Amino acid sequence: MSLRLAVTGATGRMAQEVVAEADERGDETLAVSRGAERVDGFEVSPADDLPTLLAEERPDALVDFTDPEASVEYVAACAEAGVPAVIGTTGFSDDQLDALRRASDEVPVLHAPNFSRGVAVLTDLVERATRLLPDYDVELTETHHREKRDAPSGTANALLDAIEAERADAGQDSGERVHGREGVAPRDDGDIGVHARRAGGVRGEHEVLFAGGDESLTLAHRAGSRRVFASGALDAAEWLAGRDAGWYEFEEVLA
Amino acid sequence: MSLRLAVTGATGRMAQEVVAEADERGDETLAVSRGAERVDGFEVSPADDLPTLLAEERPDALVDFTDPEASVEYVAACAEAGVPAVIGTTGFSDDQLDALRRASDEVPVLHAPNFSRGVAVLTDLVERATRLLPDYDVELTETHHREKRDAPSGTANALLDAIEAERADAGQDSGERVHGREGVAPRDDGDIGVHARRAGGVRGEHEVLFAGGDESLTLAHRAGSRRVFASGALDAAEWLAGRDAGWYEFEEVLA
Amino acid sequence: MSLRLAVTGATGRMAQEVVAEADERGDETLAVSRGAERVDGFEVSPADDLPTLLAEERPDALVDFTDPEASVEYVAACAEAGVPAVIGTTGFSDDQLDALRRASDEVPVLHAPNFSRGVAVLTDLVERATRLLPDYDVELTETHHREKRDAPSGTANALLDAIEAERADAGQDSGERVHGREGVAPRDDGDIGVHARRAGGVRGEHEVLFAGGDESLTLAHRAGSRRVFASGALDAAEWLAGRDAGWYEFEEVLA
Amino acid sequence: MSLRLAVTGATGRMAQEVVAEADERGDETLAVSRGAERVDGFEVSPADDLPTLLAEERPDALVDFTDPEASVEYVAACAEAGVPAVIGTTGFSDDQLDALRRASDEVPVLHAPNFSRGVAVLTDLVERATRLLPDYDVELTETHHREKRDAPSGTANALLDAIEAERADAGQDSGERVHGREGVAPRDDGDIGVHARRAGGVRGEHEVLFAGGDESLTLAHRAGSRRVFASGALDAAEWLAGRDAGWYEFEEVLA
Repeated sequence: MSLRLAVTGATGRMAQEVVAEADERGDETLAVSRGAERVDGFEVSPADDLPTLLAEERPDALVDFTDPEASVEYVAACAEAGVPAVIGTTGFSDDQLDALRRASDEVPVLHAPNFSRGVAVLTDLVERATRLLPDYDVELTETHHREKRDAPSGTANALLDAIEAERADAGQDSGERVHGREGVAPRDDGDIGVHARRAGGVRGEHEVLFAGGDESLTLAHRAGSRRVFASGALDAAEWLAGRDAGWYEFEEVLA
Repeated sequence: MSLRLAVTGATGRMAQEVVAEADERGDETLAVSRGAERVDGFEVSPADDLPTLLAEERPDALVDFTDPEASVEYVAACAEAGVPAVIGTTGFSDDQLDALRRASDEVPVLHAPNFSRGVAVLTDLVERATRLLPDYDVELTETHHREKRDAPSGTANALLDAIEAERADAGQDSGERVHGREGVAPRDDGDIGVHARRAGGVRGEHEVLFAGGDESLTLAHRAGSRRVFASGALDAAEWLAGRDAGWYEFEEVLA
Repeated sequence: MSLRLAVTGATGRMAQEVVAEADERGDETLAVSRGAERVDGFEVSPADDLPTLLAEERPDALVDFTDPEASVEYVAACAEAGVPAVIGTTGFSDDQLDALRRASDEVPVLHAPNFSRGVAVLTDLVERATRLLPDYDVELTETHHREKRDAPSGTANALLDAIEAERADAGQDSGERVHGREGVAPRDDGDIGVHARRAGGVRGEHEVLFAGGDESLTLAHRAGSRRVFASGALDAAEWLAGRDAGWYEFEEVLA
Repeated sequence: MSLRLAVTGATGRMAQEVVAEADERGDETLAVSRGAERVDGFEVSPADDLPTLLAEERPDALVDFTDPEASVEYVAACAEAGVPAVIGTTGFSDDQLDALRRASDEVPVLHAPNFSRGVAVLTDLVERATRLLPDYDVELTETHHREKRDAPSGTANALLDAIEAERADAGQDSGERVHGREGVAPRDDGDIGVHARRAGGVRGEHEVLFAGGDESLTLAHRAGSRRVFASGALDAAEWLAGRDAGWYEFEEVLA
């Protein structure tokens, strides 16, 4: 099935990956941006014209990797025009999230912090291993390029949340998140070691180690490029096109 | 709960790990062997006396890591004496497996190629990943000590069986199991690469790589010592003691 | 120092990485190809005009990732025009290599199968480990994307050559290169296991395992993109520009 | 060549590995301890009798894994009796080290924090990589069993010292040793990330990651058991027996 997609923030790096990936799949894209009129050989419509463009072109979905403020405005235009919205933007305030949810009364809306199928599967498997290996020690190690400023990564935090939620469900205790160790510091039961490595141009690796008795289990994900995330967003758009209005999760796309 | 266990093949490396682990847990062991009468400080009964020993001592279970022929004979003795049997021996013919199953009409019998909790969890997670990542290429790599004669390992074969069964359930095709690659040999969809490394004293590592698009997921298990397997066999014995006659799986012990 | 470079095979993937990397460094490129006249926004001269272009433009060096036949012709043109040549093309016959060497009587020529600094360092360290761990078993594992047709990779073969040469120097025996293992196949002393994994979009990983006694040492390299190789080729061009005629190795660039 | 060795601290775990390894090699051992008279089937002489035992039995060397105070006393006895000493004890004060050095005027003495051949080779390769990859970011990750109290490990600290010394030699700057990362914390040039993982029964793993541009190099060592260290100590004893008095390094044994 070939799609027609509106892509916002067309001068941004993620949007350009989305356009390139769509091109490879044979999907058609309508690029929209607040800024430039042309990006490396494809035409870009001004963001102000988005309502008109949605009404006239009636794309199968909109794919948005911009900023919270722009995103809220674009999703409102989708609700007006009856176009499903896939949102990869992060950093919304609660009010902004409420605005997205209101739009989902009118059209299908899917918002996710990470569109990698592999990270979603990793999270699922980590939850399962947490349940099946209740007394094993857990250590999370992530590696990213040297320019990344925040540590640990958002995906690492989401994995830690998932482990702790799973433990709580199973009546197991969670201790501290221990960020590195130095000095004489015995390990407490339930603690989770967290290790954020920053080096060179590494794209993004997450590894969860479960060790107990005299054995260990390692679950690891590695992203080769941003294209991974573009591809997941397009899978989401294809899945969302033609659904009923509502609020959807990326996990449902994968199911 | 402390157990009394008959342990066969008492001069073998696995049986000695079982005795050592039982000793640490406070379980009592009755060692049985076709060969030597003493092993490093513990007494060993001749295998011919097993029926008498089972009848008189009434152990909670028998734990057997021997060879198929011996194993079938010992399990028959268990069926006669009403003693549950935990079998870690591998390489049974179909006829021999039938004999084990007949014994399970009389007593509880649990047979497993691998008594590691971690390997059981790895297998479970690999099945799940197979279902969630249907189009991803799969490559299995295992590493064992230089003396290991068969390749790939029994555990690797069990993992490959599990992947293929999961694919068949999901209507996916499986191609060949490709044992190493040399020359101009493009990869076919559905093939599974299998890589058996043999080096030094490595205890046992199994890694399954799923790669697709521009990302990869790696699930890996590492055993630190044979003690892992002895510990799993004793968990199985404890679980089996007092059950009804029947044929049981190690996964049930873990559940 | 900013360079002016002739880049042949300009429609190919490696040449385009070279052009992009040069662009980022502020180097100027003159693209040459047998085929298209334009590639994604930069102009391409026909290969037949190369002698004229070299004579008139006098670039600091030529960078060539094409095929053996074309490469020999281009290097002859360099020898004529007095332009240094950096050659990343592989698969030359002995006669073709002789032709390259003859050109190096007139101009500096540098030919390498791999322009990654990291792979050069890996090779150096693997040689050293071979000497320092003479009785350890060696297993090489490489992983590349699913489209790669030859196995093992050229870099893997170069690593195997380096290990065997080092052993020969030290009076150690080398056995077979064992490409995967299946069946009952004990490991012979001196054998090197070779495992070529093909999966998804993996860029290129090479790992050499040394294991002996009860320990192991692993040396591994991972390329994040083809840009790594383009960058090394430009380092070589910068190093080569202004040298005397002669035959050079990439290791000299790194020294 | 078969040896006769005095082994001190015979009730300790390392000494027992030394005795077991010696037994396997066909070396003879004379066990000495301040405590028990028998250890699992072998006889132990009281430490007070060490001078007499050394004088009468004239072993080829003494192997010592005890505590600093005992070690100094034992090495003095070696100096008196003319017996070479291999010392694996750690934690000496400067005064105690001086005492060891004084003994080396009379007999050969070799003191090392780690008797693994693999760790010595890892250190050598890490130094070399530091020199060859001057602008690459370095991150060190080590993993040990959950009971280990100090972090990072002594071997990790020795690796960090080696990297910093190599950088100083080459005129490169070293920044901070960053033990884990949390919060918004950009990476500074020259910093070395240090990650100490504690989980289950892991024997001891050290990994040094060099990453720069778009590639990475990983050098890793894994110990399978304490036997590794016993084996290195016996190699040292064999090498030391018959040498002139003096102070020796484990690296010389390996050369």
